[in-house]
Amino acid sequence: MDLTGQNFIAGAPAGGRTPLRAVKPATGATLPPAFLEADAELVDAALAAADGAFAAYARTSAADRAAFLRAVADEIVALGSQLLERAQAETALPPARLESERGRTVNQLRMFAALLEEGSWVEAIIDPGDPARVPAPKPDIRRMLVPLGPVAVFAASNFPLAFSVAGGDTASALAAGCPVVVKAHPAHPGTAELVARAVAAAARRSGIPAGVCSLLHGWSHEVGLALVRHRLTRAVGFTGSLRAGRALFDAAAVRPEPIPVYAEMGSVNPVFLLPAALAQRAEQIAEGLAQSVTLGVGQFCTNPGVVLGIRGAGLDRLRVALAGRIGTTAAGVMLYQRLSQSYAAGVARARERSAAQLAAAPATDGPTRAAPTLLATDAATFVADAGLREEIFGPASLLVTAADGEELLRAAEALEGQLTASIHGTEDDLHAHARLVEVLQRKAGRLIFNGFPTGVEVGHAMQHGGPYPASTDVRTTSVGATAILRFVRPVCWQDFPDAALPPALRDRNALGIWRRVNGELTKADVARA
Amino acid sequence: MDLTGQNFIAGAPAGGRTPLRAVKPATGATLPPAFLEADAELVDAALAAADGAFAAYARTSAADRAAFLRAVADEIVALGSQLLERAQAETALPPARLESERGRTVNQLRMFAALLEEGSWVEAIIDPGDPARVPAPKPDIRRMLVPLGPVAVFAASNFPLAFSVAGGDTASALAAGCPVVVKAHPAHPGTAELVARAVAAAARRSGIPAGVCSLLHGWSHEVGLALVRHRLTRAVGFTGSLRAGRALFDAAAVRPEPIPVYAEMGSVNPVFLLPAALAQRAEQIAEGLAQSVTLGVGQFCTNPGVVLGIRGAGLDRLRVALAGRIGTTAAGVMLYQRLSQSYAAGVARARERSAAQLAAAPATDGPTRAAPTLLATDAATFVADAGLREEIFGPASLLVTAADGEELLRAAEALEGQLTASIHGTEDDLHAHARLVEVLQRKAGRLIFNGFPTGVEVGHAMQHGGPYPASTDVRTTSVGATAILRFVRPVCWQDFPDAALPPALRDRNALGIWRRVNGELTKADVARA
Repeated sequence: MDLTGQNFIAGAPAGGRTPLRAVKPATGATLPPAFLEADAELVDAALAAADGAFAAYARTSAADRAAFLRAVADEIVALGSQLLERAQAETALPPARLESERGRTVNQLRMFAALLEEGSWVEAIIDPGDPARVPAPKPDIRRMLVPLGPVAVFAASNFPLAFSVAGGDTASALAAGCPVVVKAHPAHPGTAELVARAVAAAARRSGIPAGVCSLLHGWSHEVGLALVRHRLTRAVGFTGSLRAGRALFDAAAVRPEPIPVYAEMGSVNPVFLLPAALAQRAEQIAEGLAQSVTLGVGQFCTNPGVVLGIRGAGLDRLRVALAGRIGTTAAGVMLYQRLSQSYAAGVARARERSAAQLAAAPATDGPTRAAPTLLATDAATFVADAGLREEIFGPASLLVTAADGEELLRAAEALEGQLTASIHGTEDDLHAHARLVEVLQRKAGRLIFNGFPTGVEVGHAMQHGGPYPASTDVRTTSVGATAILRFVRPVCWQDFPDAALPPALRDRNALGIWRRVNGELTKADVARA
Repeated sequence: MDLTGQNFIAGAPAGGRTPLRAVKPATGATLPPAFLEADAELVDAALAAADGAFAAYARTSAADRAAFLRAVADEIVALGSQLLERAQAETALPPARLESERGRTVNQLRMFAALLEEGSWVEAIIDPGDPARVPAPKPDIRRMLVPLGPVAVFAASNFPLAFSVAGGDTASALAAGCPVVVKAHPAHPGTAELVARAVAAAARRSGIPAGVCSLLHGWSHEVGLALVRHRLTRAVGFTGSLRAGRALFDAAAVRPEPIPVYAEMGSVNPVFLLPAALAQRAEQIAEGLAQSVTLGVGQFCTNPGVVLGIRGAGLDRLRVALAGRIGTTAAGVMLYQRLSQSYAAGVARARERSAAQLAAAPATDGPTRAAPTLLATDAATFVADAGLREEIFGPASLLVTAADGEELLRAAEALEGQLTASIHGTEDDLHAHARLVEVLQRKAGRLIFNGFPTGVEVGHAMQHGGPYPASTDVRTTSVGATAILRFVRPVCWQDFPDAALPPALRDRNALGIWRRVNGELTKADVARA
């Protein structure tokens, strides 16, 4: 398949304006073809196509929508080595990682297909009427979740497949019954085009309206802001930096009709090391931490950017082992040059803010290299200096030493909202530090015991999202089955005739889903009074 | 019980500043005592008390929280005639209405108590781990909903009990495990103090921290804005005007950490009258409509402010009957003088915008009277003039005549977001106007067939909330059991030892709640690998 470099509206190439080429981060060389930036007219065309497709798409049966999601997965797999090679050239991520990321991408599409087939996610609630009630007859009320409408999805740079064109937000929005308009990330436009065309092919062969997915390129902020401001956009999904995410949130908040913005903006993912665990296995924890910090050149939202422990022999052992391991990990190529520059600047800024540099990997040549780095400070400085609590995106971590448990608690209290918080400890440690666990539960969306935050399991129970600034909406997740709840709203029908109700709410439970009837979960049919 | 006129922080009187007296709307006379406005210090003290109570309150068992909610209901009932008489003096609502509203208020507290006792509302989801999985062991992940933290609740004027101090938002927030700080509505400060003291008494006798409920008075916007801007506030519940609700939403959106604002801001609640239904029973529909429009002097968020039909003999019959009924309904006393002034101005503005006045009840003397009014226009004018689609709070409705089904559809498409949309029709009508139903589903949170929007059933399935400007968050409801979801967020625990998990997530399902384990709903215990 030859790349066109065009924007894609409802599955068809649609031209564009200002050209820009993708850059191969490993060498700085540009890659063909030229990609064309979208403009306000293309944004409008994409949203009009999405809105035009919405009614028909929202009406598709769960089985048809599930078949479509599975077809998207199959078409992505069918892109074969072309997809992996293009993604590798555009992102410098190693082939094995991209292959496993492709697996995750198709698995989450198939997970949502299975969720649709099971069907209970619509949360059907039925309160049958009672015409004989006094003083007034009780109406028959039936409620379920319905799709919001067109969703703008912003692809992330660090997961060119799993958080990009057919990534988590797209999969959950399509599953919910919402068309999507994806803004490609400029760091991997070719990967984006390939996947967008796979989605279009899946729609064609599944009989799904082409308007359910459009792809727009944008280098300036204008395309993204136009997407968020467009009157037909009903929700926004974003994964990226705090600055960009907040800008989209702010733009949505001042719309005449505000819309939800789900911006997942990363965090420092603190890892707390409790004394008994360190006494038992400081070196083993150091090994796991070093791997987690340097994995994928540290380019994960869940990268452990802060490690905290209480002064003592155990923490000393950990420090030595961690510094040794991080100082000898090779520098890696980051996703694009501005990231590696920000990384270097972030490390330098932390050092100016009196964080000591304990270890740094040897620098290597090349425009987008980042050397793993371990910084250190004490808890009092960490609490006093908000700048040290900011994320440095890349393979760096800051080791924070507290004088005692109280100071450790104060450091925890000083943290902003986090995607994750990890605790290494024994069960006795957990018991002795119960207040710490309580504080961390207020700070984070996911609490991890004796593990590391990188590696986000895609399943029913995953919560990937946390209090601001980890995300702009603490009530939802961007990973896992419940992500579908981002793109729906409840509607209730009062006293409607059975045939005019959506199938999920009819007396006969032909779909065989769980429903709450008179307050009780059941798969039984409903008897009308 | 003598009213103090003070603010109440954590159940104790706490003074205040600028005094203001409540006014008896029926006569314009002031009522003793003087109430004292809160200031920034009192706002801070109330939030500090709420935050201080949060950890302990969030940890209370479902049984203890349920007992507390039932105690609140009992204490409200125990206020007896003093509460009803004060509310009647402050609001001019008739005794029977206030008695039934008190019933609704205590019923919703008890509904949430029952929801807590049943317990499944926490949406426990458990994905057990698999240490043997390759290439990497599968972690054990368990997710449930936990309370957000302190909630600011703004009392509404039109339900001095059911949407006020211990009304819907307070009940659902307290049920979720969130302390509340209520801003009293200045139109019924005495009613507010009585109920706040009932909540405090219930907390005392239930062993619940006093900080779970504080009451602040405010006449200016400053108290409300300070509540929304306070760093400890984690969510806001509001019922009232579009202008005030949007101001709170805007204030929250520019916070350093944005928080959810659930503002329910009313709507025009369109009622569509389809031809076959009109042919069958135009006069009967007119009778029901007139009652719905004039009920409680039209002071309901669900008041049917726009009635739409297709030109013809059936609509002619309806018009005559409706005009006759509305023109002979007595004027009523509104909740406070500014409302009746706004009502008169709204009716006058609609007439200037070329809505004809079909009927108006005879005016009567008194400062806060509002005369029921029926206005009329054609669908083309209605579509062209957004001003005619704005809510007039009070007993007025606008009859819109469409030339045909297509024009009726265009009128529906021109509507903004609504709490409700009603359709009167036969099943054949519904079939013939399927596109209208589809459009209305996008516009409204509740669809009503052959009924009227006033009278909001409190139950499991109720959805009270709709697309903006009906509410600022279309994803939630302010009435019914699922309102508890406004004040929670999901958290997941990865690989935690059983004893360190919240009871709802432990292997043994001691609470006997429904949980999703490996994707299947079950009440069974969980077996760890």
